[in-house]
Amino acid sequence: MSASSRSLNLAVIPGDGIGQEVVAEGLKVLSAVLPQDVKLETRDFDFGARRYHATGETLTDADLDALKAHDAILLGAIGDPSVPSGVLERGFLLKLRFAFDHHVNLRPSKLLPGVATPLAGQPEIDFVVVREGTEGPYTGNGGTIRKGTEHEVATEVSVNTAYGVERVIRDAFARAQARPRKKLTLVHKNNVLTFAGHLWTDVFNRVAAEYPEVTTDYIHVDAATIYLVTDPARFDVIVTDNLFGDIITDLAAAVSGGIGVAASGNINPSGDFPSMFEPVHGSAPDIAGQGKADPTATVLSVALLLRHLGYEGEAARIEEAVSADLGERGGLPARSTSEIGDALAARVAG
Amino acid sequence: MSASSRSLNLAVIPGDGIGQEVVAEGLKVLSAVLPQDVKLETRDFDFGARRYHATGETLTDADLDALKAHDAILLGAIGDPSVPSGVLERGFLLKLRFAFDHHVNLRPSKLLPGVATPLAGQPEIDFVVVREGTEGPYTGNGGTIRKGTEHEVATEVSVNTAYGVERVIRDAFARAQARPRKKLTLVHKNNVLTFAGHLWTDVFNRVAAEYPEVTTDYIHVDAATIYLVTDPARFDVIVTDNLFGDIITDLAAAVSGGIGVAASGNINPSGDFPSMFEPVHGSAPDIAGQGKADPTATVLSVALLLRHLGYEGEAARIEEAVSADLGERGGLPARSTSEIGDALAARVAG
Ligand SMILES: CC(C)[C@H](C(=O)O)[C@@H](O)C(=O)O
Ligand SMILES: CC(C)[C@H](C(=O)O)[C@@H](O)C(=O)O
Repeated sequence: MSASSRSLNLAVIPGDGIGQEVVAEGLKVLSAVLPQDVKLETRDFDFGARRYHATGETLTDADLDALKAHDAILLGAIGDPSVPSGVLERGFLLKLRFAFDHHVNLRPSKLLPGVATPLAGQPEIDFVVVREGTEGPYTGNGGTIRKGTEHEVATEVSVNTAYGVERVIRDAFARAQARPRKKLTLVHKNNVLTFAGHLWTDVFNRVAAEYPEVTTDYIHVDAATIYLVTDPARFDVIVTDNLFGDIITDLAAAVSGGIGVAASGNINPSGDFPSMFEPVHGSAPDIAGQGKADPTATVLSVALLLRHLGYEGEAARIEEAVSADLGERGGLPARSTSEIGDALAARVAG
Repeated sequence: MSASSRSLNLAVIPGDGIGQEVVAEGLKVLSAVLPQDVKLETRDFDFGARRYHATGETLTDADLDALKAHDAILLGAIGDPSVPSGVLERGFLLKLRFAFDHHVNLRPSKLLPGVATPLAGQPEIDFVVVREGTEGPYTGNGGTIRKGTEHEVATEVSVNTAYGVERVIRDAFARAQARPRKKLTLVHKNNVLTFAGHLWTDVFNRVAAEYPEVTTDYIHVDAATIYLVTDPARFDVIVTDNLFGDIITDLAAAVSGGIGVAASGNINPSGDFPSMFEPVHGSAPDIAGQGKADPTATVLSVALLLRHLGYEGEAARIEEAVSADLGERGGLPARSTSEIGDALAARVAG
C-alpha cells in the first residue's frame, strides 16, 4: 500500500445522551491529527434508544455486517432511562463485544498533572487494566424459574475457558513486557470462586514462565479496591475477569481524574473484526444537549483507536495535547464540550 | 430469667496470624464492659491453619455441634499462606456461614474523628452495608471440565432465591427505617446480570412499598465504587449481593479509616444458630506475633456482638470508647496491640 492511498474507514456510533456531543469532538481531533494523505471516511450508525423505540431493534445481523466493513468503530455512549435496564446493554453493547470477539478490553488509568483526584496527596497513577471481554459472568448464561413467585430461583453462570483466559493473559503479559516497569498483577477471587480461580491462576502462572522479565503478583479483587485508593502506584498492568474488570476500572477511573477522562478499547487483536473504542462514561442524560460533557475521554479513546491501527505518533500527539490541556485547566473557567474539542484539535494540528 | 442469672456463653476462634492477638484484646474489652451480674463463659476453638496441617480438618460436624451450643462466636482471622488458597475459605469461613445460615453480613462504615482516610477533604462517612451471606456466587456451585488442558471450561454459578433475597432485603429495610436518614440503596449489576438483577430489583421494589418512609435508590456496583470515593456521604444503608458486598465493603473499609477499624457481623437474625462477629481484616501473617496489629476492628466487632445479644448500652459504650481513643491517637507514638486493648478496656470500665 503506497502512502498516498491510505484510508481510515471508521464506523461512528454517537448513541444516546452526551454521546452525540463527545463523538463530534473526537472526530474533530481525529481529523486534525491525521496525516494529510490519509483519507478519513466515516459512516454514522443510529444505534441506541431512539432506534430501539422506533423499530424495537438494537443490533441486527445486517447491522453487524455493515459495521464489519470498517477499520474500527468509535462509540459515544449507549443507554437511556426510557429503555428498561439491560435491553441496550445486552442487546447492543454486549452483543457487539461478543459478536466481534472483543476479548481485550483495554482501560488505561493515568493521573495527569493538574487533574483533580478524590485521593489525598496526589499519588502517582499510571497503569492499564486488561479486562477480559467475552466470558465470565457476562455471557448471559443462567436463567430464572418460578419467576415472580416466592419460589423464584435466578442463576447467573460465569463461563471461563482455557482458550479465552489464555489469550487475554497472553495479551496482558505482552503489554507488561513492553512497559518500563514490566509488572503484571492478576486480580481475581480465587479463594472463593475456586473453579474459575484455579483456571485463571494456573494459566497465569504457566504463561508467566515464558516472560521471565515480567514481575507478577496476585491479589483478590476486594483487596485490589483497597490498593486502588491507598497505593495505586503499586499497579502497572492488571489482568482480570470481565466483571472484576468492570468494577475496578470504574474505581480506577474515579481515582485517576474521573470518568470524564477515562478511555477504553474493546479490542480484537486478531483483526478479524473491527475493534471498538469508547469513553468509559455513560450517556449522562442529566447533562445531555447542554454542551457540558467533557469530550476528553472520547478524544483519548480516539488515541487508543489510532494506536491500535498503527498510528502511534498520532496517538501520542493526542495524549500529549490532552495532558497539556488538562495541565492548564486548573483555575480556568469551565469550557464547553466544543471549546475543549477545539482546543485539543488546535494542539494536535499545531 | 432474673438479672442475677444472666450469662454470655461465647465461642472464641482466635485463628491464624494476628487473630490470636486481636481476639485477646477483644475479650479484655468485653470483660471490662459486661455488667457484673453477667457470667461470661468462653470456650476456645483451634480452627485454622495449625489444625488443618495437623489433622486435615477444617470444620467437622462435631465442631458445628459444639459451636452451636453458644450464644455467639467471636473470630479473629483465618488464613495462612501455608494452606492452598480456598481451603480454609471454603472449608471453614464459608462453611460456617452457610451451616449457620448467616445470611445478614453486617458491615458498618463510619469515619471517626481524627481517623486518617485516603480521601481528600475528610468527607462524612456513616453507612452500613447489609451484604447477603448465603447465596450468590459464593455457593460453590459450578465446576471444571477437561482440567489442565487447553479445552478446560470452569464455571461459577451465582444462585439467587426469592427466599434468600427477600429476607436480607427485609432486614436492610428494617435497619434503614431505624436510622435517622432512612435511606436504602440497592447495589447490583442488573443491566448485565439480568436474571439475578431482576429478582433483586423486583423484590426490592416490592418490599419498598411497605416502607414508605424509606427513600430508596439503585446503583450499579461499578458506579458504587465511584461514589464510595467521590461522595460516600450519599450512602446510609446499602443492601447487596454476596460478591458485590465483599468487594464494596473492603473499599468502604479503606476509605473510612482502613481495615484496622472495620468490624463485621455474620448474623442469623432467627437465632436458630449463633451469629459470628469478626474484624474484616485477615490474618496478616507479615505482622503476626509482633504486637503491631490494631485490635480496634475486633473490639468494634465485640460491640456488634453485644448489640446483637441485646446489650445495647454496652455496645454503645465500646463504640464511644473507640471513638474517643481514635480521636486522641493522632500525633501520638504508635501503641502495641495490648496497649490499645488496655486503653479501651479502661475506658469502657470507667
Ligand atoms: C454498560 C455496561 C454493559 C458496561 C459493562 O458492564 O461492561 C459498562 O459498565 C462498561 O464498563 O463498559
Ligand atoms: C476470606 C473470604 C472468604 C471472605 C469473603 O470473601 O467473604 C473475606 O474476603 C470477607 O470479606 O469476609
